[in-house]
Formats: sequence, C-alpha cells, structure tokens
Amino acid sequence: MRLYGMRISGNCWKAAQILRLTGHEFDWIEIDGNAGETRTPEFLKINPIGKVPALVMDDGIVLAESNAILLHFAEFSPWLPPPGLARSKVHEWLFFEQYCHEPSLAVARNIITWRREAHLYPDRLAECARRGAEALDAMEQRLKENAWLVGEAPTIADLALFAYTHRADEGGFDLAQWPSVRAWVARVAALPGISTLPRPEDAG
Amino acid sequence: MRLYGMRISGNCWKAAQILRLTGHEFDWIEIDGNAGETRTPEFLKINPIGKVPALVMDDGIVLAESNAILLHFAEFSPWLPPPGLARSKVHEWLFFEQYCHEPSLAVARNIITWRREAHLYPDRLAECARRGAEALDAMEQRLKENAWLVGEAPTIADLALFAYTHRADEGGFDLAQWPSVRAWVARVAALPGISTLPRPEDAG
Repeated sequence: MRLYGMRISGNCWKAAQILRLTGHEFDWIEIDGNAGETRTPEFLKINPIGKVPALVMDDGIVLAESNAILLHFAEFSPWLPPPGLARSKVHEWLFFEQYCHEPSLAVARNIITWRREAHLYPDRLAECARRGAEALDAMEQRLKENAWLVGEAPTIADLALFAYTHRADEGGFDLAQWPSVRAWVARVAALPGISTLPRPEDAG
Repeated sequence: MRLYGMRISGNCWKAAQILRLTGHEFDWIEIDGNAGETRTPEFLKINPIGKVPALVMDDGIVLAESNAILLHFAEFSPWLPPPGLARSKVHEWLFFEQYCHEPSLAVARNIITWRREAHLYPDRLAECARRGAEALDAMEQRLKENAWLVGEAPTIADLALFAYTHRADEGGFDLAQWPSVRAWVARVAALPGISTLPRPEDAG
C-alpha cells in the first residue's frame, strides 16, 4: 500500500498510526499541502478531493478521509468495539472530531505554528479559539470521570482526537485549562506503539 | 425514543429518515437552533455540544451526530454494506459530507433562505459557494457513471448527501451545473419512504 501524506498533519498521522498498530506495511509518500502539492493534476487523479491522507490499497483502490481509514483498519481489532452502542459512540466522536474539533485546532495550529501567518487571520483565529475551546470543554466533560472517550479501553476515538489535541499548544490552546484532557493526552501517548507529531524544530 | 430536532435541518432529516426506514417509532421534539434553543441549560444537559439532532434512546443514552445515528440504525440493514471496502467507501462519503459538503451547502442555505441574512455575510457566502462547488464536483465525478455513491444500491451515503443536496438551490447552487447530481437527487427522492425537507412557504 502507498500512503500519501504530510508528515506534520494530524489527519495523516491517524492513517499511519492505525496501519502500524494493526501490523500493515506501507510506503509513505510525502505531499506538502501547504506548498500546493495536493492540487496538482497528478495528485487529483489519486484523490479528486485534493486532500491527504489518501491510501492506495493493493488492488489500486483509493481510500481517503482519515477517520474512514481508521475505521477500515480497526475493524475486527480491539481498537473498534463490535456493532452496538459502544461502536456508535466511537462514530459520534469521529464525526465530532471532523466537524467541531479539527476545523478549529488543526486550522489554528497550521496558521500559527506551521505557516506563521497569525497576523493575516486575526478574525479566523478568534473563531478557532472560541470553537476549539468548546470542543475541548466537551472532551473535558467526558474525560473528567473516564480514562477513555468510549468504554473502558482505548479506541480509534482516542486516536482520532489525540491527533490534534496533543499539539493543541501549537494552535494557541493551553491544556492547563483542560486538566482531564491533558492527563488523557499523556495516557494515550504512553500506549504501546503510539508516535507523536514532529515539532517545528524537528521538521527541518 | 425521543428525537430532538429542527424540522428544517438536513442533519435532523437524516436521523428521522433512517428511523422511519428501519421501522423505529420515535417522538419528535422541535428545537429551533436559529432561536438559540440548542444552547439552553436544559438542552445542554441532553447534548453538551449544543447541537441537534440528539436522540434519547430507550435506556436514556443519548446519541448525537447525524451520521453516527445513520450508522447506528443502518447496521444489519440493506442501507449499510457489511464490513469491507464498500462499507469503508460509505464512511468516506459520510466524513466528506460533514467536512466538505455540509459546512458549505447547509450554512449557505441557512444564511440565504432561512435567516435571510445574505447581506450580512458576503465573504462567508463567497467561500461557501467556492467550497460547495468543489463538493458538488466530487459528487458529479462519481455519479457521472454510477447510479449511487457506493456500489450498486442506495446506502446511507446517499441519504447523508441527499439531505442538503436536494435543497442546494436554497444556498444559491444551481444543480443544472451538476446534471448527474441532479439526476441522482431525483433517483433518491423516488425511493420508497423518502421524505423531503420543507420549503419556506410550507414551514409557516
């Protein structure tokens, strides 16, 4: 399999992480979205939506959307409960992540830390700060009395939310305000086989 | 079961639609998000994210996120293929819907037709028009040579995308530009048991 991804992207991190956790080998092909490489004619042939991650499977079929990739490889593994309420709560967090969390935390992180363009987007960043805080509040409420987002063991809901939460500081969020989220970040990071996103000083 | 929803919302339409298609009875409780009713202390106890739909199941457990509700009730029905590549392509469209489609088509529809505030948000609507057209382009590409979004039969991917596509005109999108999408809208609407969203003149 070939995984087209951007090394600093939390969405791409999710895809690589679940492939490694479930024992799948793959080749990584670096695509720099900030440099326009997801919009070239060649890449749009692979993923017409022009986004990474995009996974080309052995039969040539392409699977996009980071959380669809998480679900695909977690099926029949301990990372995804069988059909029923627990699985549906995992789904709920996955959609929450893409609708309420990523558009604030990931966007703010990219503008502030990776593109260094905070001065260009003050209004957008204020909106990200407000909505991102709401998303972290929702996580805090769940994690105050629970170790994991769903049930009693880690699932792909934890992986999906960990992706951008463990680098929330790069988007201007201080997790000291959400202590249960901060403790959960440490708990996920300590699981066997979990990697973390590079910091700017490591990314070269 | 009690379904808290807003009658003019495509996300709430999805929840009611899959419950009816799979033979589940429920009580509908109208919540007007545009009037702030999703942010009252009472409603936030039901769904801390402050969004509809929110489904209170018989055991009191709440399931939110329209596409998680679709997945929950479609399991073991013809609306969701068994685990495997077809199911993962359904997931891909569901995440696409929430990330690339709904934030443009639903937001533009609400501002232009339901809140009648187009004059207040020209920049935001221009962004919706651009991104919404990209989302419709992606659907057109698939539907040019296929009757349904995944496989050879309708799935919840079709329901999820139908929700706001069949009222795309209310957000300023003319489906004449996407003829395969327009034909697919008619195809979904003609399926047994499919309802459509009210028009302003019907909504009272």
